[in-house]
Amino acid sequence: MTTLDFDPYVRDCPSRRLLDRIGDRWTVLVIGMLEDGPQRFSQIARRVDGISQKMLTQTLRSLEADGLVLRTAYPEIPPHVEYELTELGRSLLGPLHVLVAWAKEHMGEVQSSRDRSSVA
Amino acid sequence: MTTLDFDPYVRDCPSRRLLDRIGDRWTVLVIGMLEDGPQRFSQIARRVDGISQKMLTQTLRSLEADGLVLRTAYPEIPPHVEYELTELGRSLLGPLHVLVAWAKEHMGEVQSSRDRSSVA
Repeated sequence: MTTLDFDPYVRDCPSRRLLDRIGDRWTVLVIGMLEDGPQRFSQIARRVDGISQKMLTQTLRSLEADGLVLRTAYPEIPPHVEYELTELGRSLLGPLHVLVAWAKEHMGEVQSSRDRSSVA
Repeated sequence: MTTLDFDPYVRDCPSRRLLDRIGDRWTVLVIGMLEDGPQRFSQIARRVDGISQKMLTQTLRSLEADGLVLRTAYPEIPPHVEYELTELGRSLLGPLHVLVAWAKEHMGEVQSSRDRSSVA
């Protein structure tokens, strides 16, 4: 299967599942958080306001399975675990920045539209 | 509130809701579909494989409320309704293309990682 064969408009194409994954709110925020370098679970949890422990665990496992995040366990006392972006994960930063920049730039327009819409 | 005040890392910031919206699978596919020009509900439903009538209705209503899609009802016999991107909606095409291009380009790597991960 070459690159061109993937088509998210087709129900069972795996690229649709990938689209779900990379569009997920928590994925976007966690990947953005890891841009600054390796971090512990508790650091990420603190900075991504509102994420539950369970949801962060799931998000990190999915990112690890997809090859976007690397999990390293350091056998120290006390032991600790760090998460960092892989090269593949870093390659997603550019596209996500573009999306987040759009959201920030146009949030005002969207908000005005929503306000008009809920009045009508 | 200026542009810079929006921060999706903060739980109640409206930009987080916008991030959810623009990252949604159906939103991405429907907006991509409308790139070619105005289309009827049935045309969109046919081309976005696997979307239910209910989900397409909800997606279009949200996009309309957010000011990304314009709904026009033509009082003909039989009456018909068309959906098209607004200028704001068109401005989102670029960022979404970047994301979809990334997904297509790296789908193979993600797939290999998933295969290894499920074997382990």
